[in-house]
Amino acid sequence: MNSFGKLFRISIFGESHGERVGVLIDGVPAGITLSEKDLISDLERRKSGAKGTTPRQEDDIPVIRSGIFNGKTTGAPVMIEFENKNTRSRDYTDLRKTPRPGHADFTASKKYGGFEDYRGGGHFSGRLTLALVAAGALAKKMIKPVSVKSKLVEVGGSENIEAAVEQAMKNGDSIGGILECRIENIPGGSGEPFFDSFESVLSHMVFSIPAIKGIEFGAGFVAAKMTGSEHNDNFIDINGKTETNYAGGINGGITNGNDIVFRVVVKPTSSTHKTQQTMNFHDGEMQSLTVEGRHDTCIALRVPVVLEAAAAIVTADMMLQAQQIQRIFNPKDS
Amino acid sequence: MNSFGKLFRISIFGESHGERVGVLIDGVPAGITLSEKDLISDLERRKSGAKGTTPRQEDDIPVIRSGIFNGKTTGAPVMIEFENKNTRSRDYTDLRKTPRPGHADFTASKKYGGFEDYRGGGHFSGRLTLALVAAGALAKKMIKPVSVKSKLVEVGGSENIEAAVEQAMKNGDSIGGILECRIENIPGGSGEPFFDSFESVLSHMVFSIPAIKGIEFGAGFVAAKMTGSEHNDNFIDINGKTETNYAGGINGGITNGNDIVFRVVVKPTSSTHKTQQTMNFHDGEMQSLTVEGRHDTCIALRVPVVLEAAAAIVTADMMLQAQQIQRIFNPKDS
Amino acid sequence: MNSFGKLFRISIFGESHGERVGVLIDGVPAGITLSEKDLISDLERRKSGAKGTTPRQEDDIPVIRSGIFNGKTTGAPVMIEFENKNTRSRDYTDLRKTPRPGHADFTASKKYGGFEDYRGGGHFSGRLTLALVAAGALAKKMIKPVSVKSKLVEVGGSENIEAAVEQAMKNGDSIGGILECRIENIPGGSGEPFFDSFESVLSHMVFSIPAIKGIEFGAGFVAAKMTGSEHNDNFIDINGKTETNYAGGINGGITNGNDIVFRVVVKPTSSTHKTQQTMNFHDGEMQSLTVEGRHDTCIALRVPVVLEAAAAIVTADMMLQAQQIQRIFNPKDS
Amino acid sequence: MNSFGKLFRISIFGESHGERVGVLIDGVPAGITLSEKDLISDLERRKSGAKGTTPRQEDDIPVIRSGIFNGKTTGAPVMIEFENKNTRSRDYTDLRKTPRPGHADFTASKKYGGFEDYRGGGHFSGRLTLALVAAGALAKKMIKPVSVKSKLVEVGGSENIEAAVEQAMKNGDSIGGILECRIENIPGGSGEPFFDSFESVLSHMVFSIPAIKGIEFGAGFVAAKMTGSEHNDNFIDINGKTETNYAGGINGGITNGNDIVFRVVVKPTSSTHKTQQTMNFHDGEMQSLTVEGRHDTCIALRVPVVLEAAAAIVTADMMLQAQQIQRIFNPKDS
Repeated sequence: MNSFGKLFRISIFGESHGERVGVLIDGVPAGITLSEKDLISDLERRKSGAKGTTPRQEDDIPVIRSGIFNGKTTGAPVMIEFENKNTRSRDYTDLRKTPRPGHADFTASKKYGGFEDYRGGGHFSGRLTLALVAAGALAKKMIKPVSVKSKLVEVGGSENIEAAVEQAMKNGDSIGGILECRIENIPGGSGEPFFDSFESVLSHMVFSIPAIKGIEFGAGFVAAKMTGSEHNDNFIDINGKTETNYAGGINGGITNGNDIVFRVVVKPTSSTHKTQQTMNFHDGEMQSLTVEGRHDTCIALRVPVVLEAAAAIVTADMMLQAQQIQRIFNPKDS
Repeated sequence: MNSFGKLFRISIFGESHGERVGVLIDGVPAGITLSEKDLISDLERRKSGAKGTTPRQEDDIPVIRSGIFNGKTTGAPVMIEFENKNTRSRDYTDLRKTPRPGHADFTASKKYGGFEDYRGGGHFSGRLTLALVAAGALAKKMIKPVSVKSKLVEVGGSENIEAAVEQAMKNGDSIGGILECRIENIPGGSGEPFFDSFESVLSHMVFSIPAIKGIEFGAGFVAAKMTGSEHNDNFIDINGKTETNYAGGINGGITNGNDIVFRVVVKPTSSTHKTQQTMNFHDGEMQSLTVEGRHDTCIALRVPVVLEAAAAIVTADMMLQAQQIQRIFNPKDS
Repeated sequence: MNSFGKLFRISIFGESHGERVGVLIDGVPAGITLSEKDLISDLERRKSGAKGTTPRQEDDIPVIRSGIFNGKTTGAPVMIEFENKNTRSRDYTDLRKTPRPGHADFTASKKYGGFEDYRGGGHFSGRLTLALVAAGALAKKMIKPVSVKSKLVEVGGSENIEAAVEQAMKNGDSIGGILECRIENIPGGSGEPFFDSFESVLSHMVFSIPAIKGIEFGAGFVAAKMTGSEHNDNFIDINGKTETNYAGGINGGITNGNDIVFRVVVKPTSSTHKTQQTMNFHDGEMQSLTVEGRHDTCIALRVPVVLEAAAAIVTADMMLQAQQIQRIFNPKDS
Repeated sequence: MNSFGKLFRISIFGESHGERVGVLIDGVPAGITLSEKDLISDLERRKSGAKGTTPRQEDDIPVIRSGIFNGKTTGAPVMIEFENKNTRSRDYTDLRKTPRPGHADFTASKKYGGFEDYRGGGHFSGRLTLALVAAGALAKKMIKPVSVKSKLVEVGGSENIEAAVEQAMKNGDSIGGILECRIENIPGGSGEPFFDSFESVLSHMVFSIPAIKGIEFGAGFVAAKMTGSEHNDNFIDINGKTETNYAGGINGGITNGNDIVFRVVVKPTSSTHKTQQTMNFHDGEMQSLTVEGRHDTCIALRVPVVLEAAAAIVTADMMLQAQQIQRIFNPKDS
């Protein structure tokens, strides 16, 4: 379903070419200073406009509809909405017959029997990550002094991001990338053994970001080539700080007081300017398809702030469960 | 917490050197033929005994305590227990002062204030995966004709598994590995956009298996080096079968009718015969530590059947949610 | 928290004197014909305006912001909002010091540390039942041919409702009442033994309606004076219809195919025109309080449609869990 | 399903004439002193043996299988089992054709397609309340100094309980009763507005006790005959203590610091020694039925300790959510 979290719970709604997208946030402690301004800088980072991102431009102006009084959270649900302004009403009939390879067109139709809103990806659209970023900006305030930082590590197989994007645009094809995220200053003792391990809950959330197809913690897949005595992180102080951080800050599902470090892979967007072959599901014939519309050459460029939001949301929920966040904020803390 | 699932729900309990470990399984459809015999073959696959696995030997005989009547499931919760027989009562006092690097000793103590059962890993022990395997064997019956298969792809950086294990034993050090898992025959339409994407729920479960530090679907991390037109899987028939399967059987969080394919990395066990440095948390001095006890040189050897169980459990829950499994089994089906 | 339901899930937001109130509805099957018009008749029934209800008048015009495409539900979350128009900005400072007896003023302040929006009850206001009624109108469409009907049985201890209300208005005091609700045509087999018994889930929801302080099923409290042979409902046909319905349509937590019948008590609203004594929590002195503002003499008059909504929402969720509602509606069914 | 709770979560299993019944308890803070002895006194109170209770006698000896180390809880799940010893293997074939009126026989068969264990009520049996009482005894330790007390108020319409029971035994018929329960010393600020109101969660749990058909808080159904100025509880001190307690300790879903007071009705057990008419569901003919077996004349006699357990379990969960219970107990507190 479209909700996530146990004590800090977010629910998203909206469609790419519908009227609005938004997020309902429950479990917010009372007393946190919050206004639309607090959301702007993260929302700006998610925006398109840079080279390699879609030419669709939206204002992305957040409006907080509930849960705030006298400039502070009240403990009641916070609802944040965005109007869709730059929508296009064109004919999507063809898309129904010939779903785009690699896209959710086919599976959405399978699941919702053709009733889904298929315009621009509908409810499956990356536009819904606006909602995540808004909730993430609030979560970041809740978890202070814990902080979350995310950056692109490579795109299109190249560490020279600008060059790789430029080349991809010339080729008219899309490219993927790899991001790294760090949760800094996080106290030990969050997370549970087994099903609610910090890795479990974090990966659950991270895979709800469209286009992410892999995640690894600490040494990650490289651990397969290491020995135990190499991989074990040696303690260097009485607080549990370690010399290396191959575990990525988590042992037995529980944070150990070192930074949580993880990497994710973002696949190339399925929409490209290249002509592809697809099945016409009405007559069973192959046919060529050129995807119209505005799309990102390298969606990975826009994911860092979304990934931070995902990590902050999970951290807020886990810290509430571990009683590391109070339900009523002291005004001087927020 | 120690439960997982929405309509098919498992809860685990027990400790490595306690009296028992077990699993309580709820949401099982009525009418499935089930006896302890149905669990044996998967439980055997999990057992130690092969080269590179711990010398601790347990009978691992499952006893079904509830939820069965006249040889069939009743719809009431199924409780399956295992007695721990081969436990050792030795002195763990030292371990309290000098937690093993890379192990959950330190984080467990942080979370439970020293009240945790620290004998042999306590509730954090890999022994709890017995419970997963038992639940997985039942889940496999529920999801038929869907099947789940898992295999080791490499250990210790080598595809020659036997040789790599032998070398590691000689070195007295542990090694990690990579596994691949396939869910075959799974119908399209399971999973949800965003938070309950099939990848989200599956990764949530998979990271509850101790020692797993990464997961990737389909092309996985390699997708970062592909273009969209390479990564998109072309449809080849009217049922949605595709030529390639770089998406790993999932688009937009929803199964597309192709096999679900994913890989995981298993880190080397933290317990090795090598002498390591650790912190004495009582006096803040570094001291050397040799981990006593029986441990696996290559725990990855025992993970395939655990991974299958995890995948089958998730599949059962997702298919129940998608109404692809009936709540009452037809006797002739089971 | 502010969400309810497992497969059919509603989340509410908003405040009495805030900008909006609304509801986010998840788990709606795709393909149900739905527009704002479908909500109007139930919303009208909830409105004030009749004798004995508050003079605050609101348009209560619902706007569906997501989850609809071509006049039908898509399977994505449905968000429905209402603007608050007739709000009043007056000074509530006194209320902070001298909470109204019988009201949530004191407990809200205890829970949210004084950060709560206290204007007109804030998030605790009966105005939030607008959201329930909107969600209930959608649920009623989902559960067809099951239907839910609710009526006032008595108010102020009198079965002559009009007379009792008139008398109360003369007295300047508020009065309570009793309602009966029937869920008709409901199939057998919904609900679970123990924790998710139909009574459990229904009462959980019903007690979220402000001012309800009791619920009883079938013979209810009268059963305490009956013998088993009187209370047992005799079967009269092969479908399980019974001669009497003292069980209220539920045995062992599971529907038996007879109507579900239950009654609830609505306490008199705490706000009255009478002068009361209250504590000044700033100085610990008793002081007299006259509650300003617009309030209902007999809130019970407005509860029937809210109670129907609560019952329909629960029924939709329980029937989805029992696989008695399909996830994709056949267009001709809706 | 067979689980209840959010941060303090219990799951029950077993059948009346199966091998065992038991409970798995998750979310228990670490460091609470606990042994089987702590459970005995409540288990004794639930036992049959008194006049008016079933002649079936069971030892009801609890065995704690996990979650305890050195006499204290560890934070890991606590599993408590009871062996069924005094089971009877007789022929229940007739019962399949002619379900007992007022019993779960018919609905269980409807739900589980005839696969349910129908011996002595199977998983629907009141014997499962053993599990609740065991969990309740642990919950009572967690919530100290909050305490829960429950007593019979009337049975068979009479406040003279002994006389009423004696008369019913002579008549060979069963009788119902009314109980009152008080949660004393509970701090203000637990519970949530709307869906997780304290009344909502408590009634949810209470209706999972077999035979309960109604619940009312504070003045309850009598509130329908009161005016607002009568029903409002006047504050008498700065902590929120009130003169009367018509609200039953809860305003707006949240505890106000006064005792929580509620009453429930227990219907007469459906099994009586009287000959009844029932439907033969194989041939559609009416036929007379005499229920064999051992049953309670007045099951209400055994409910008080079960009701206390239900209330304590809910209180533990709500107080954990309100951060009024710490996740790690100080050894000197337990």
